[in-house]
Amino acid sequence: MSLPITVIVERLGGTLVGSSELSINAIAPLETAGPNEISFLSNPLYVDQLDKTRAGCVILSSNHIKQGSASRGGTFIVVDNPYLYFAQLTQLWRTLHPLHDSSEPLVHPSAVIHPNAHVHPSARIGPHCVVGSGAVIGERTVLTSSVNVAHSCKIGADCIIHPGVVIGADGFGFAQNQGKWVKIEQLGSVLIGNQVEIGANTCIDRGALGDTVIEDGVKLDNLIQIAHNVRIGAHTAIAAFVGVSGSTKIGAHCTVAGGAGFVGHIEIADHVNIGAKAVITRSIAEKGNYGGYYPFDSDSVWRKNAAILRKLSSLRDKVKSLMLGGSK
Amino acid sequence: MSLPITVIVERLGGTLVGSSELSINAIAPLETAGPNEISFLSNPLYVDQLDKTRAGCVILSSNHIKQGSASRGGTFIVVDNPYLYFAQLTQLWRTLHPLHDSSEPLVHPSAVIHPNAHVHPSARIGPHCVVGSGAVIGERTVLTSSVNVAHSCKIGADCIIHPGVVIGADGFGFAQNQGKWVKIEQLGSVLIGNQVEIGANTCIDRGALGDTVIEDGVKLDNLIQIAHNVRIGAHTAIAAFVGVSGSTKIGAHCTVAGGAGFVGHIEIADHVNIGAKAVITRSIAEKGNYGGYYPFDSDSVWRKNAAILRKLSSLRDKVKSLMLGGSK
Amino acid sequence: MSLPITVIVERLGGTLVGSSELSINAIAPLETAGPNEISFLSNPLYVDQLDKTRAGCVILSSNHIKQGSASRGGTFIVVDNPYLYFAQLTQLWRTLHPLHDSSEPLVHPSAVIHPNAHVHPSARIGPHCVVGSGAVIGERTVLTSSVNVAHSCKIGADCIIHPGVVIGADGFGFAQNQGKWVKIEQLGSVLIGNQVEIGANTCIDRGALGDTVIEDGVKLDNLIQIAHNVRIGAHTAIAAFVGVSGSTKIGAHCTVAGGAGFVGHIEIADHVNIGAKAVITRSIAEKGNYGGYYPFDSDSVWRKNAAILRKLSSLRDKVKSLMLGGSK
Repeated sequence: MSLPITVIVERLGGTLVGSSELSINAIAPLETAGPNEISFLSNPLYVDQLDKTRAGCVILSSNHIKQGSASRGGTFIVVDNPYLYFAQLTQLWRTLHPLHDSSEPLVHPSAVIHPNAHVHPSARIGPHCVVGSGAVIGERTVLTSSVNVAHSCKIGADCIIHPGVVIGADGFGFAQNQGKWVKIEQLGSVLIGNQVEIGANTCIDRGALGDTVIEDGVKLDNLIQIAHNVRIGAHTAIAAFVGVSGSTKIGAHCTVAGGAGFVGHIEIADHVNIGAKAVITRSIAEKGNYGGYYPFDSDSVWRKNAAILRKLSSLRDKVKSLMLGGSK
Repeated sequence: MSLPITVIVERLGGTLVGSSELSINAIAPLETAGPNEISFLSNPLYVDQLDKTRAGCVILSSNHIKQGSASRGGTFIVVDNPYLYFAQLTQLWRTLHPLHDSSEPLVHPSAVIHPNAHVHPSARIGPHCVVGSGAVIGERTVLTSSVNVAHSCKIGADCIIHPGVVIGADGFGFAQNQGKWVKIEQLGSVLIGNQVEIGANTCIDRGALGDTVIEDGVKLDNLIQIAHNVRIGAHTAIAAFVGVSGSTKIGAHCTVAGGAGFVGHIEIADHVNIGAKAVITRSIAEKGNYGGYYPFDSDSVWRKNAAILRKLSSLRDKVKSLMLGGSK
Repeated sequence: MSLPITVIVERLGGTLVGSSELSINAIAPLETAGPNEISFLSNPLYVDQLDKTRAGCVILSSNHIKQGSASRGGTFIVVDNPYLYFAQLTQLWRTLHPLHDSSEPLVHPSAVIHPNAHVHPSARIGPHCVVGSGAVIGERTVLTSSVNVAHSCKIGADCIIHPGVVIGADGFGFAQNQGKWVKIEQLGSVLIGNQVEIGANTCIDRGALGDTVIEDGVKLDNLIQIAHNVRIGAHTAIAAFVGVSGSTKIGAHCTVAGGAGFVGHIEIADHVNIGAKAVITRSIAEKGNYGGYYPFDSDSVWRKNAAILRKLSSLRDKVKSLMLGGSK
């Protein structure tokens, strides 16, 4: 399907420079885009690619235009925020190339929806989903396929839940009794706000007493573990393999990189950015960037350094004794 | 549903101090509990909350009573182990508020159970579960929903298997042949004992030749990987994102915190506790606490330290030369 | 079922030393194998076990024979590469003990296959699988059970996809707009080559614009995350809990140990081996072994060392001042 460049500008704004005759067949990266494809330049590091690209049209900012790139000719859409414009263009593209035939039923016949569940008539429930008793699925929310939403869990409007997600399994709670574990029944639930997206095979456990809460606009990647009674603040984005232990609260507008972990019962302020694989062991009260992982190296260098690291306190003691004037 | 406090004490024991007229509507944390709710005090750090709570009744130990908390009036259940009592209370609560209508069939019609599988008539098999040929599911064991149990795998009695769990997928075994991987068919199986709980999307691979074994009373959190021929000892509890590599044996009564990993072919003694994100690279013969992760910090501090860490051996050499009396 | 030793040698080659009358009931490890079982010796560290094993037959190399092990009598198959021979034997075993009755249909009736999907008539699609519109499943490829293959994703021939795998969920892509995340529709797809094996609950996201590519012969363990627009080179093997961030390219014939992570937009050469839990933060141009994780220790030793590590730059500064002749 072909989309006139004029329609794009009409729908999404921006200033068209160059040919208004162009018709777009696809969105593509600068490196590979061809004459009937549209691309974008967002990262100034890639400004050189403008000279080489064969893209029929490039979305860019007026700064890039000033750098003389447009002088080579070609067609541009000049906007304030090219990356945001690109995102909006992908959405326009999706609207024009919908994933589902309007003749398909919104609820797939293989989905198992408990008679006491409340699924909004505009929600889409894909193949092999399971929605438990008392669960609520909001307006226009999509459970793609093989999604499990356990009893009493509530999902707001305009959410996208990817395959294999498990919402509302029991939190991991046990008391010790003479060397055996006694189950603490998980009597709380999960509350998910609006415009939340949850990646494939991510797990969000139900609360032990109160609820586990995911606020509006949160974006969770694949294979994330959210333990019982956690709260994730609005518009926070979390990458794959992040684990958040029980009762921890993460603020709003945070970002958490892949593989980071949070111990339980701590609190993270708003606007905190956590680096990859960091182990967050105490509350963070100040916004800012935090992180820490072991730097990788060639195997031989790492092994040597790690061996010294294991005896770091002895190295420190030697330095101390030297500072006091001692030597061997 | 309302539960007279006297019934709780009758069923679970403990000494009731205060009003025997009280009727309980919910179990709640100390901070949020209201006058018709019951709470518990287990961690002595929170003893101050006793003065502020609005809970109708608090489960606590005689120590806490002695600290004068009861003097403010109110209703208490005095027990030896408040946390264990709380666990038992949640179980009583669940019994009185069952998740499933007794009219529901134990095996959901959407479950796919191989005709050669052996499912005990008291087991519950939820929606979209798959039970393979020759698999055995024991008495009262629950496969919640979307659980996969592959051919020949055996699960004991009174287990709870949460959604998305995969039991008995092939272990990861290949031989090299001129740069290509040749599959080693995984001819073993998985044996799971009694009273085992397995969290959502956890994977337990079948053995290559012998079996992968999970002993009685083991508790596994979500998103855990148990490789082929691993053995997990009785009453060991493992948190999310833990990976146990092939043929490793973990003892009984161990705990493993989130994100820890074990290399293959090692042996961990009983009563070992492993800290978060630790990489366990050799056998542990002595019970005790082990761990290690890179401490997080503000991004700038961490980057500085990590850069030095990468040259730790050069720092060590400088100290050595200083110890020998040398300086630049 | 019993398999004459002569049939094994006839099918797989090797030199039979000893009794040609032997009939094999099972393949077993050296430690546990009995008189009607066959075992193998691959790792020279275990050569001592040859004297103790009760195995009816042992697969070994001529080196081991020379070490005199065969002098005790017994039956051996002498081959160049015992581990490879063992792998081939497991395959022979599987062929003779097939998992599926030939009367079972190749496509399970509970699978949901979109009418526009292209499933080769020789492919096996197990219970509760979902195959989206335009998806392609190649010859003899097996989707075991509960596998999700989203619209337009293509899987080659002779692949094995284990339960819970999600292929083609949306990549994690968003633009910021005044503190909120704007979804970038993921318009690319996933291309998977031939003879690829993918472990349980692993996720491979679809590309944002181009495709995510898994080349021929790649072996992925359980619970792996492959982000959008990643490319994994042919015959690379990756262990559990590895995360590969967006647009990163990993070469051919690499191995990646469990829990390692790759940041986005980097490139790893062919024949690179990455150690467990390593965080790979920049491109690697040279083949070789790379790694790095925090060494575990007893909890008390680790805590002491970690505290010093957090102040490593101050320790370095002290050494610098000592080198310059300063002391306190």
